[in-house]
Amino acid sequence: SSGTPEVIIPGASSYNGLNLVPQMGWNNWNAFQCDVDESLLLDTAQKMIDFGLRDLGYNHIVLDDCWSIDRNESGYLVSDPIKFPSGMKAIADRLHQLGFRFGMYSSAGIFTCARYPGSLGHEQKDADLWASWGVDYLKYDNCFNQGQSGTPKLSFDRYKVMSDALNSTGHPMVYSMCNWGNDDPYDWAYTIANSGRMSGDIYDSFNRPDARCPCTEAIGCSWPGFHCSVMNILNKMAPIAPRTMSGYFNDMDMLEVGNGGQSDSEYVVHFSMWAIHSSPMLIGTNVGTLSPANLAIYSNPAILAINQDPSAGGASRKWRYFVDPDETGEGEISLWTRGLKNGDRIVALLNAANSTMMMNASMNEIFFDQRTAGAYREPEELRQTWDIYDLWANRMSEEEAASIINGNATTRGNHTTRFNATATSYAEGIANNDTALFGVHVGSIAPSGTFSAEIARHSVGVYRLRARPTPTSRKRDEL
Amino acid sequence: SSGTPEVIIPGASSYNGLNLVPQMGWNNWNAFQCDVDESLLLDTAQKMIDFGLRDLGYNHIVLDDCWSIDRNESGYLVSDPIKFPSGMKAIADRLHQLGFRFGMYSSAGIFTCARYPGSLGHEQKDADLWASWGVDYLKYDNCFNQGQSGTPKLSFDRYKVMSDALNSTGHPMVYSMCNWGNDDPYDWAYTIANSGRMSGDIYDSFNRPDARCPCTEAIGCSWPGFHCSVMNILNKMAPIAPRTMSGYFNDMDMLEVGNGGQSDSEYVVHFSMWAIHSSPMLIGTNVGTLSPANLAIYSNPAILAINQDPSAGGASRKWRYFVDPDETGEGEISLWTRGLKNGDRIVALLNAANSTMMMNASMNEIFFDQRTAGAYREPEELRQTWDIYDLWANRMSEEEAASIINGNATTRGNHTTRFNATATSYAEGIANNDTALFGVHVGSIAPSGTFSAEIARHSVGVYRLRARPTPTSRKRDEL
Amino acid sequence: SSGTPEVIIPGASSYNGLNLVPQMGWNNWNAFQCDVDESLLLDTAQKMIDFGLRDLGYNHIVLDDCWSIDRNESGYLVSDPIKFPSGMKAIADRLHQLGFRFGMYSSAGIFTCARYPGSLGHEQKDADLWASWGVDYLKYDNCFNQGQSGTPKLSFDRYKVMSDALNSTGHPMVYSMCNWGNDDPYDWAYTIANSGRMSGDIYDSFNRPDARCPCTEAIGCSWPGFHCSVMNILNKMAPIAPRTMSGYFNDMDMLEVGNGGQSDSEYVVHFSMWAIHSSPMLIGTNVGTLSPANLAIYSNPAILAINQDPSAGGASRKWRYFVDPDETGEGEISLWTRGLKNGDRIVALLNAANSTMMMNASMNEIFFDQRTAGAYREPEELRQTWDIYDLWANRMSEEEAASIINGNATTRGNHTTRFNATATSYAEGIANNDTALFGVHVGSIAPSGTFSAEIARHSVGVYRLRARPTPTSRKRDEL
Amino acid sequence: SSGTPEVIIPGASSYNGLNLVPQMGWNNWNAFQCDVDESLLLDTAQKMIDFGLRDLGYNHIVLDDCWSIDRNESGYLVSDPIKFPSGMKAIADRLHQLGFRFGMYSSAGIFTCARYPGSLGHEQKDADLWASWGVDYLKYDNCFNQGQSGTPKLSFDRYKVMSDALNSTGHPMVYSMCNWGNDDPYDWAYTIANSGRMSGDIYDSFNRPDARCPCTEAIGCSWPGFHCSVMNILNKMAPIAPRTMSGYFNDMDMLEVGNGGQSDSEYVVHFSMWAIHSSPMLIGTNVGTLSPANLAIYSNPAILAINQDPSAGGASRKWRYFVDPDETGEGEISLWTRGLKNGDRIVALLNAANSTMMMNASMNEIFFDQRTAGAYREPEELRQTWDIYDLWANRMSEEEAASIINGNATTRGNHTTRFNATATSYAEGIANNDTALFGVHVGSIAPSGTFSAEIARHSVGVYRLRARPTPTSRKRDEL
Repeated sequence: SSGTPEVIIPGASSYNGLNLVPQMGWNNWNAFQCDVDESLLLDTAQKMIDFGLRDLGYNHIVLDDCWSIDRNESGYLVSDPIKFPSGMKAIADRLHQLGFRFGMYSSAGIFTCARYPGSLGHEQKDADLWASWGVDYLKYDNCFNQGQSGTPKLSFDRYKVMSDALNSTGHPMVYSMCNWGNDDPYDWAYTIANSGRMSGDIYDSFNRPDARCPCTEAIGCSWPGFHCSVMNILNKMAPIAPRTMSGYFNDMDMLEVGNGGQSDSEYVVHFSMWAIHSSPMLIGTNVGTLSPANLAIYSNPAILAINQDPSAGGASRKWRYFVDPDETGEGEISLWTRGLKNGDRIVALLNAANSTMMMNASMNEIFFDQRTAGAYREPEELRQTWDIYDLWANRMSEEEAASIINGNATTRGNHTTRFNATATSYAEGIANNDTALFGVHVGSIAPSGTFSAEIARHSVGVYRLRARPTPTSRKRDEL
Repeated sequence: SSGTPEVIIPGASSYNGLNLVPQMGWNNWNAFQCDVDESLLLDTAQKMIDFGLRDLGYNHIVLDDCWSIDRNESGYLVSDPIKFPSGMKAIADRLHQLGFRFGMYSSAGIFTCARYPGSLGHEQKDADLWASWGVDYLKYDNCFNQGQSGTPKLSFDRYKVMSDALNSTGHPMVYSMCNWGNDDPYDWAYTIANSGRMSGDIYDSFNRPDARCPCTEAIGCSWPGFHCSVMNILNKMAPIAPRTMSGYFNDMDMLEVGNGGQSDSEYVVHFSMWAIHSSPMLIGTNVGTLSPANLAIYSNPAILAINQDPSAGGASRKWRYFVDPDETGEGEISLWTRGLKNGDRIVALLNAANSTMMMNASMNEIFFDQRTAGAYREPEELRQTWDIYDLWANRMSEEEAASIINGNATTRGNHTTRFNATATSYAEGIANNDTALFGVHVGSIAPSGTFSAEIARHSVGVYRLRARPTPTSRKRDEL
Repeated sequence: SSGTPEVIIPGASSYNGLNLVPQMGWNNWNAFQCDVDESLLLDTAQKMIDFGLRDLGYNHIVLDDCWSIDRNESGYLVSDPIKFPSGMKAIADRLHQLGFRFGMYSSAGIFTCARYPGSLGHEQKDADLWASWGVDYLKYDNCFNQGQSGTPKLSFDRYKVMSDALNSTGHPMVYSMCNWGNDDPYDWAYTIANSGRMSGDIYDSFNRPDARCPCTEAIGCSWPGFHCSVMNILNKMAPIAPRTMSGYFNDMDMLEVGNGGQSDSEYVVHFSMWAIHSSPMLIGTNVGTLSPANLAIYSNPAILAINQDPSAGGASRKWRYFVDPDETGEGEISLWTRGLKNGDRIVALLNAANSTMMMNASMNEIFFDQRTAGAYREPEELRQTWDIYDLWANRMSEEEAASIINGNATTRGNHTTRFNATATSYAEGIANNDTALFGVHVGSIAPSGTFSAEIARHSVGVYRLRARPTPTSRKRDEL
Repeated sequence: SSGTPEVIIPGASSYNGLNLVPQMGWNNWNAFQCDVDESLLLDTAQKMIDFGLRDLGYNHIVLDDCWSIDRNESGYLVSDPIKFPSGMKAIADRLHQLGFRFGMYSSAGIFTCARYPGSLGHEQKDADLWASWGVDYLKYDNCFNQGQSGTPKLSFDRYKVMSDALNSTGHPMVYSMCNWGNDDPYDWAYTIANSGRMSGDIYDSFNRPDARCPCTEAIGCSWPGFHCSVMNILNKMAPIAPRTMSGYFNDMDMLEVGNGGQSDSEYVVHFSMWAIHSSPMLIGTNVGTLSPANLAIYSNPAILAINQDPSAGGASRKWRYFVDPDETGEGEISLWTRGLKNGDRIVALLNAANSTMMMNASMNEIFFDQRTAGAYREPEELRQTWDIYDLWANRMSEEEAASIINGNATTRGNHTTRFNATATSYAEGIANNDTALFGVHVGSIAPSGTFSAEIARHSVGVYRLRARPTPTSRKRDEL
């Protein structure tokens, strides 16, 4: 048996009790790489407050590679005094005051990927240092690992050392593994980490194959590489999505929205599908140069509410057809679905083909898993009528987004576009039927019915389905 | 040399002397998952008696995941007092009184798949506890295994710890490995276990590919997954079937017959092909809601007699052609054969294409292995005439099945449909030419002849061939 | 650099100094499997003398699985007293008297493949026992190996234990590994063994794919299986043939010639291609029932002279085209070449397609390796004229073979068909231009020329090319 | 994150501080194999001086396999006194006097590939001996490795022993791993070695597939083999090129230019693509018989300047199309680009199809990586105009090359064809705009423009692009 468990015992859902829903925040790598300093972190944090992103839940500021200079005589890492003159503790304190958690970076190797000192063999000292600074989060990379890979056991054992070191500090730190899916961590990492990358590095392309990202499947990929496109990473999730669970998320890598390599609708696909899969949602662009359109994507609370749903699951690809390739030689359409904690259901009609498509999802397809789940559990979902909410239909206008960026927004209380997750969790918002989390009601599906929508080229329709109440539901002892 | 041995020394045919023919019984997972309690077990047991299933040989009641709450201070597992208020020992005693063996479940990891306490590192205490309760059988899963996989040695060593623990109790317990074929157990598990799963979890679909079950071959599959269809699992058996042997069976997973996801003829394929491959035969549905048609499938003694044949072998796929796909995009026909202990031979004409097919099996195909087995062993099979028995032709009628379900059956002695394996083993029944085990005689094949039958879409014809006596057979020293 | 070395230091060419050319002989498995006893061994030995096979070089009698009953209290194996009443030492002595070497069998596992006691953990005692009996040869199988595989190191370490045990006895024993190519022994076995199987078990079929032999490549094959056809095994040799070397041969498995599953010309392909690849040549049929045609195949000294050439190499597949499939769905033609110690060259035109083909081999193709071997070593082969000898043109007639079988052969001195390798080695025979080793001279190829021959369906033309002397050959310091 | 780092800390760029740009020189294997002696080394060295090759940077003389005879009683290797009567120390001294570094060879196994004594288990003694002789470089092969492979860890651990041994001598020796890409060394070797072979052995063919080189991808190749063509090796580089770095180079194997198996334009492809990928550049032919055309290829300083660029990177394959196969059945065209330290950019239009092609490279393709690198780093490259230099347009004429070979060259100061890297490094030459390093200016590409060129069959156009200066470039704090 390997299905999604229905009963979860205390303590087992997260190895360290942290990260019960996916982490959200910002990481500098995609946009800035090694060009980092303390003002970048603090300026970005302030802009994230100003733009409402912190209150949407993006509450981690993660500093990636290139922050250290060496180890001192006692073996502790030394941060770069030119880049970070105030010192890391002061930066952490300031970020905490601003309402953020502070994330840092190292590698399970003798160097980081940019060839700064790595933590392999120094795990406890490094964990102790981070804890002393008040660090809340570690992204832990896989470069220069001295060949300690090749079987799940070799990778597990190496990553577990840091896991144990973090825990032994007594200071809570989210542990974000970044081993690119090497040795299939979706099969072993959830007892030692809070999230784990499942592919090579993303690049800002919707669907262009790149020779440096040679695998099309996550499973058994011996060379994750980098320059993996949005669609490459998305489809790698299909077999492993069931191994996403509360406290351990399959990390599809940081978001490229805003970096200029994709169209607006492609970024909508990227953002939506990451959210649906409970991927960590880390903004990976220069917040200071965000366009109104891109801010509107990052600010869709109806999509983020899926990501932050307590069900903490992945989506299931019901079907995939290769059709109508674009100029990169790629073309496909697919149907993805996911259940939520409260019984609502997400349907995504994804069009990665080269032209507009009329797409359908039947009740039978949407609830196929229920239909084949065993005679005892008769799928009442199939006998219900479902209301359909289009989660992008109330997308924030460019005007509204521009007013936020310009600092003259007057409609912070706009209940169809704005949500403050600091004040009210997404779970509560859903329970309260907060209008910002439901987009626009666009119809319903009756039992045996089919939903259809026209989906533009390189775009996605994302819908929340909610069952209309039925008078009674039969219990087992009535069967 | 790796062929089926013809001489077997005592003690080697089963590592612990148990399970010389495949286990039969019931397991709650497919239909009930975690929704288990003692009344479910005992009520099901009673119904299995009432419906004649126990006496057909389904004599194990296996409780799957979600039965414990924690470990006590001494490190022993504690069963859930709300679900199982009488305690496990009392349940075991009651099941024994009813003529059943009692099976339980754990995982070779730190948690079970549903995240209850696992047995990794606690093997001896858990085995001792089960022995003290009178447990007869352990299903041992593979979740949360801390990366202890990746080579046959890593998986073997981990599963052997429990094997040794079970044996050291002195209490006989069948050891049913459930590692989904990871690290190719068909190559190493037969010296430590009584059966071993060879694929990801089944789901109630005949042939629909699902992204969560990505492998089409068992061998070297690094992601067994789940949601594997009947045809997916069946074809994975083709290369590994020769490694089925008395005392160790390749477990194709629990039966879905009755769960509603397949047509009647598809369930007939499922049931027949599992039986022919000497898979364990564990009913995986709610016995209380069994339809007459489904009861009739589970109750075909002519098919079960193959499964329980002392030859304890798998079937050989003589050919497979991809033709005429159905709405899932899949379509194929194939011929499977298997020899039995007494020289009888099974032929299965499988039509998984989208329309009715006239299918053929020639003597040359049926006895191809004999024909190429070496000059000394001249294949007398090719010179014989074989009578053909259609093993589904006497299938219990829905009327008869309904009368059993309704408790007003009057024809328990119906010698064409009923068999009591508690009273008479299948091997004896075959030796006695019990009519219930032979279906209907439908013809014969002469030397060099060919048998033909029209097989409906998504169906199978299963035939027992019995050689007509020949006056003499030549011995080696006459050659 | 991994090319065929041109300089070989003493001691390195064979790990134990044995088996400098491939072993020849007889093994009972293919025809008799477990039905063995001492009279089978001794009767076969006598017939091999009578038929001239011993003197052709078939001088090993190898007893395969099923000869023991148990271990005694001291841990030594006990041979079956019913099958071998004289005891193994007496049998060894008798075989030695008859001019044979005696081979036995065990497995690097806890059981043999037929589930008799295996040698894993008992290596030294078993080696000592065999040495005390005068055993000359061990076939060492891979069944029931307790999961000790998955990396080259795991398999190497396991097989090395027996290698060391055999050597430590002081009694010379050829060590014939039978691990079916698992973990790519062609990359590591030559320092511990004298030959190593490179595929799953052969069966008596020319080219029919069988689901139980799933790999089409030897490399990285995780399930060697059995029921591998002649063509399947042959093509698996293409990448690994360069790793054949004096003292370690890639073992393509025992010969099926005589077992009835193939046509005469298919057996000619089988026999020829095994010989050309320096495979061990072990007759795998019932010698007592050999037909004249089959004896004529086994008795072709011109082919055996290739196999026993001191160059001890494999052949190179210059090209392969998939064409004209037969009823099994397979069809191909290919060109194979091999160099010999004295500069002669072998060309094999193989037609595994469904109809007669006119096939060509150009000088450029035959000597392609020479042409691309580096400027310094200018390929004088391309400037020479080569005489062509058809090595099957003088095949022993069925009449002559029948007279040998009937014991009334009068032409033992027939210098075109008979050769006595006991009296004169093949190497000497070639040096002496013994007519029996050269078939029939059928033409020549001039520089830049091409040789053509019509090759029948499922047949092969095998040719020895010998360069006509050239007046002078330039030396390096003349360049 | 796994992109090319932009900041490199001292000490991390080369594990031992050596080989910051790829090694250049000569190795005897491709042309002479085991036919080596001291006069070959010294005569070749003298010719390399005479032909200007040493001063172009080919300053290593590497002696490959077959130089030893045995170990002495103290366990030290003994060089062959017949081949090397002066002894290795004297040869090293003489080569040093001539301005060369001296490289030697061994294997991480118990024998070398030609079965001379290997260094496995003797690492420190061998390293000490080489250091005492003044050896500057070790090529370390992979033959006879006793099965110590199968995971990255097994190979890493074995190769690290020699790495540590070399370092512990205190004598600087470049460590050139030759494990043929086994266990994916591109993922782990850069912390223990200065270069690492990434495929099976090259042979002198442009694109002919050979059964002995079965892999078309470097990644996960379990049988590197040999007889790999130029195009086979080149395309294996595509995914792994990003792992080339200063101090560790992916070694595409020694150059075949001059060995006669390829056309002039094919050798140009071979030489160019090796250079662009920062492969070690080791002449693999008989320098004494070099033709003028081949000398002209080896002597193109404009190509060598790419190879010796301090950026020390690999090239990126932007696209590849399979078209128009030649007589070997292969045909493709591809676009490769690479950035250099000073901002210049290399574009290679490769035509491996069977006819002349008009090929294009757009700004968008050339700078695709910049375009998708993140919003912060706005790609100014796309807004620039680039001058194009054809790096083969000033190729040395055959007349000029012949005059050098004949020793009567009068134009050593020819500033369009000659460069002396001993006097001025390539980096300095580029900084000085040395005309010999720039070929011929053939046009420019404007922003959004496309460059087109007609490329002959089996040929390549290699271009250096240099940006025209722009008035200002925006800084981050202006954004």
